[in-house]
Amino acid sequence: MYGYMGKILRIDLTNKKATVEPLKEEVLKKFIGGRGIGAKILWDELKPGICPLSPENKLVLTVGPLTGTKVQSASRWMAQFKSPLTGTYFRSVGGGFFGAELKFAGYEAIIVEGKAEKPTYVYINDENVEFRDAERIWGMNTLATREFLKEETDKNAHMVMIGPAGENLVKFSAIVTDGDFRTAARGGGGAVMGSKNLKAIVVKGSKRPEVYDEKAFDDAFKEQVESYKSNPAFEGFHNLGTNFAVYPFYTLGHFPTYNFKQKELYGAEIFQPEILSQYVVKHSGCWGCMIRCGKVFKLTKGPYAGTVWDFPEYETHWSFGGNLGNINVETIVYANMLCDFYGLDTISTGVAIGFAIELYEKGIIGKSETDGLELRWGDPDIIPELVKRIALRIGIGDLLAEGTRKAAEKIGRGAEKYAIHVKGLEFPAYDPRSAKAHGLNFATSPIGASHCIGWNKFEIMGIPRKADPFATEGKGEITKYVQDETAIAETAIFCIFPFNMEMVTIDMYAKMLYAATGIEEFKDPKHLWLAGERIFNLERAINIREGIDGKYDKMPERIVKEPVLREPSKGQIFEEEILLKDYYKVRGWDENGVPTREKLRELELDEVAEKL
Amino acid sequence: MYGYMGKILRIDLTNKKATVEPLKEEVLKKFIGGRGIGAKILWDELKPGICPLSPENKLVLTVGPLTGTKVQSASRWMAQFKSPLTGTYFRSVGGGFFGAELKFAGYEAIIVEGKAEKPTYVYINDENVEFRDAERIWGMNTLATREFLKEETDKNAHMVMIGPAGENLVKFSAIVTDGDFRTAARGGGGAVMGSKNLKAIVVKGSKRPEVYDEKAFDDAFKEQVESYKSNPAFEGFHNLGTNFAVYPFYTLGHFPTYNFKQKELYGAEIFQPEILSQYVVKHSGCWGCMIRCGKVFKLTKGPYAGTVWDFPEYETHWSFGGNLGNINVETIVYANMLCDFYGLDTISTGVAIGFAIELYEKGIIGKSETDGLELRWGDPDIIPELVKRIALRIGIGDLLAEGTRKAAEKIGRGAEKYAIHVKGLEFPAYDPRSAKAHGLNFATSPIGASHCIGWNKFEIMGIPRKADPFATEGKGEITKYVQDETAIAETAIFCIFPFNMEMVTIDMYAKMLYAATGIEEFKDPKHLWLAGERIFNLERAINIREGIDGKYDKMPERIVKEPVLREPSKGQIFEEEILLKDYYKVRGWDENGVPTREKLRELELDEVAEKL
Repeated sequence: MYGYMGKILRIDLTNKKATVEPLKEEVLKKFIGGRGIGAKILWDELKPGICPLSPENKLVLTVGPLTGTKVQSASRWMAQFKSPLTGTYFRSVGGGFFGAELKFAGYEAIIVEGKAEKPTYVYINDENVEFRDAERIWGMNTLATREFLKEETDKNAHMVMIGPAGENLVKFSAIVTDGDFRTAARGGGGAVMGSKNLKAIVVKGSKRPEVYDEKAFDDAFKEQVESYKSNPAFEGFHNLGTNFAVYPFYTLGHFPTYNFKQKELYGAEIFQPEILSQYVVKHSGCWGCMIRCGKVFKLTKGPYAGTVWDFPEYETHWSFGGNLGNINVETIVYANMLCDFYGLDTISTGVAIGFAIELYEKGIIGKSETDGLELRWGDPDIIPELVKRIALRIGIGDLLAEGTRKAAEKIGRGAEKYAIHVKGLEFPAYDPRSAKAHGLNFATSPIGASHCIGWNKFEIMGIPRKADPFATEGKGEITKYVQDETAIAETAIFCIFPFNMEMVTIDMYAKMLYAATGIEEFKDPKHLWLAGERIFNLERAINIREGIDGKYDKMPERIVKEPVLREPSKGQIFEEEILLKDYYKVRGWDENGVPTREKLRELELDEVAEKL
Repeated sequence: MYGYMGKILRIDLTNKKATVEPLKEEVLKKFIGGRGIGAKILWDELKPGICPLSPENKLVLTVGPLTGTKVQSASRWMAQFKSPLTGTYFRSVGGGFFGAELKFAGYEAIIVEGKAEKPTYVYINDENVEFRDAERIWGMNTLATREFLKEETDKNAHMVMIGPAGENLVKFSAIVTDGDFRTAARGGGGAVMGSKNLKAIVVKGSKRPEVYDEKAFDDAFKEQVESYKSNPAFEGFHNLGTNFAVYPFYTLGHFPTYNFKQKELYGAEIFQPEILSQYVVKHSGCWGCMIRCGKVFKLTKGPYAGTVWDFPEYETHWSFGGNLGNINVETIVYANMLCDFYGLDTISTGVAIGFAIELYEKGIIGKSETDGLELRWGDPDIIPELVKRIALRIGIGDLLAEGTRKAAEKIGRGAEKYAIHVKGLEFPAYDPRSAKAHGLNFATSPIGASHCIGWNKFEIMGIPRKADPFATEGKGEITKYVQDETAIAETAIFCIFPFNMEMVTIDMYAKMLYAATGIEEFKDPKHLWLAGERIFNLERAINIREGIDGKYDKMPERIVKEPVLREPSKGQIFEEEILLKDYYKVRGWDENGVPTREKLRELELDEVAEKL
């Protein structure tokens, strides 16, 4: 089977057993790879209603049909599981070198199930799979874990692992990888690994995927490289990664401030590209990607001087910056490093901290709940301190480690009003009131408020055509478009950046996919669009099976009731009802947000139609 | 020339010029190598009276005639310079892999002089010497510096470097090496590099030293290995490094408490080997040493959980532990890691912190001097905070960064009484009142209160024969013995541990040295003993030329006036006058501590005799 390695590795931690299963061609045709295959596996295998931190949860790691080939930006890897943070189906994406290495070892997917008796790591060396003792490295941060595991296995091996946060079952702990720590951060995959006593999966592979039509594949590759080079966004991405967007996006009404109060942030100019680029000392990138959006920075002043680490992304400049009223870049950089060390999602961590600051401001919690800490907007020193307490579940950190939704429930006293999440997943650095389709995606995505699963390039970049971000009309259609397109791209598992900027298109992907696999159906972009919609609906179906239907497509009160306080979106709210109604209609879902039987049959999901 | 590579590399930073000079055989015969050669170079080249942080200071790095051979524990490297902390001649020793690599590149010594115009690092690849821009890495901690420089040069290169503390000219900043950060910590070598705008010297070598008589050399090597294996101290050293000594030494009256108040330390049992060994997850060692005394530990609880780093030595458990009334191992371990990152001497740093705590306790300084920080004995949290402030010269850290002697002068108000140093060098973890010859070495060593330059195995271990530690009689003789023996061992540059435990002896060294070099004179241990005494006297002569004579062989008031408060040395003081008189006599020095002409001539230091 060209393009594919054609094998699934099932790792049963309870019985220390590894088995290899074939991937069926009819499944590949319908779900292509990556996210599609993972969703299908979870639909087939995940028992509804189980606790996400029980041995019954499954962790699926996937790659795609272009992984490890010369196609650019298509060698990421994906983790899919039932999320301990949201209770939903979840998909979280990581970068670095692990994806390519897993492919080289001969696998399209790993299914991890059960629970190891003691801390364990799994070492996959091509066909050879070992269950190894991880007692010694349990408790170690990710940097040390990487060093120890490379020494114990192979210097050129790559891995996914957890830090202390995952071991401590922090609900938004990350699955971290060794290459520049390009983490599958969201949704608590780290806690799923932790609950299984699984510290790491280390992979070393020696095979290479073969493509069906070398010449056509090479042509498609060259077309992609040309497209990258001629794209106006390429240079910005290369020079500063997502950081080039921080200040411009702030002025567009994204990069929300003060836990989404959206007051003016004095000193936001500190985030201008000219200033941020002064910190950069090195570029880095994922396997097979010429963008090299990773930036290594150094700090030369303040209490964290001497620190050198991967630059915070746009999101993290926000979560520890604007979101907390903080304009001290040094603390953002340092808190970001701590999150990588402990294995934490920087977005949820920052939002949880903002939530705590606002509760303190409103008098809902006091010093007795914060272990004496004063929580104030814009105070840089408390940020690294709270990151630590969350990762290690110390004092108030233990409460925040549950995520804002659960923490608010526990606190009561109206705290829920300040918990900014959908379905339990904390918001990223976009304001639904400043970009309505973008917000509509937060409301309806299968994983909660994620910007990665339907980033609205219409509204934000005017790509492929401009859409008024404040309007409500036509938003269902463009939301569906980007959600389905993302699902297609993530069958690869393509990085979403080049799709957002149209450096890669679905038409281009179809050419690559056919040249790589020789599967006739893939020639036709329409087949891919149908597959994207199919995957998105299947994910929705998994949630509905869990009892999570349209009632959960719910924005926080602040977003639907409190108007934005600053320009250009001053006065805007999120018109939830109108927007959702339009969206459900476009999707072919009923008024409860459930896909109709007709829609499911149209998507060749007959079996799903029967079960729902 | 067997054993030797026979070359000195002179690096002129001002003019970016590297020149190679031969090493003369008559110099080698008299000074052997390592510390001997370095002292000779400084005697010949160091202009008296210069500021240690001026371009006129010289930094000499040396290795010895056994470096890079299979002889065990003989591949350390040495830094010699005029110390910005003490104003004296200084010698500081480091481990890891740099020594062997320097030898492999073909050099016995490097002389660094002048000052680079901008931050620079030097890359030595055999004969090829490059002066490279270090702007980008200036400000980086040592871990990041190592990573960047290995990438920019050669993955297998080794280096000496400074961290932010050296750049900030902290007077007790260290020269750090890449292999497990086995630092030449004492005396401010880091500041000397910093003052020269020299971030690092990176070395990659491809040659191997040849020995004169392979068979005899191999026999000597085998004898050494047998001696190691049969020595009762070997296992303890291997299992726990110097940490095996912490608790036993405390009970013997060493490991002084509370800035040498020597009160009982409640909870000192925490330092028992059984408890400390629970932290160890890995052994590590220097090039060519089977002891592998380096221990890597991990922290699994408290605010520093997830940390994995090289274990603190005996000294550091004291400087951040007993010395501060602190029994929290986690903070010791973390503060130790920070010192490695910033490039700080852990001994002087801990003593400076103890000094500050006592000044605060006595009301000599208050919150206005400490930037609001409360300084209290046994408070673990202030320790990492003060380490940072010292390295970065923030607030009170800026004052303490000058060393306790200078800080006390600046503060006035009787602060000097609590500055525990000789000649400006802060005390290590031994109390002169509990081991008088050990103390006598602190008073008379050319570099100030160092435990490494005359560790009194008679008193502490009963090796080669027992000496009552509290007695004053006969202490001159045994002090001279260990000082001279250390000087001999450090011509190699042997690690001092195996000599302290008599795993290696001077007789054994003579055999190795002759087999390696073929130099007849080295056959005779008496020749070596004379060389050791010669080197020690030459170092003394450098100091005297700087105006530092017997008047500076001066203990702190506390040591000579305040009796120890705890058993077994309760009531003891250090009888300075009696002890020094005896020592000067044994040394053949006059009542001002100046070597007599006769003594210098006897040591074939005629030229020195004339100049003094």
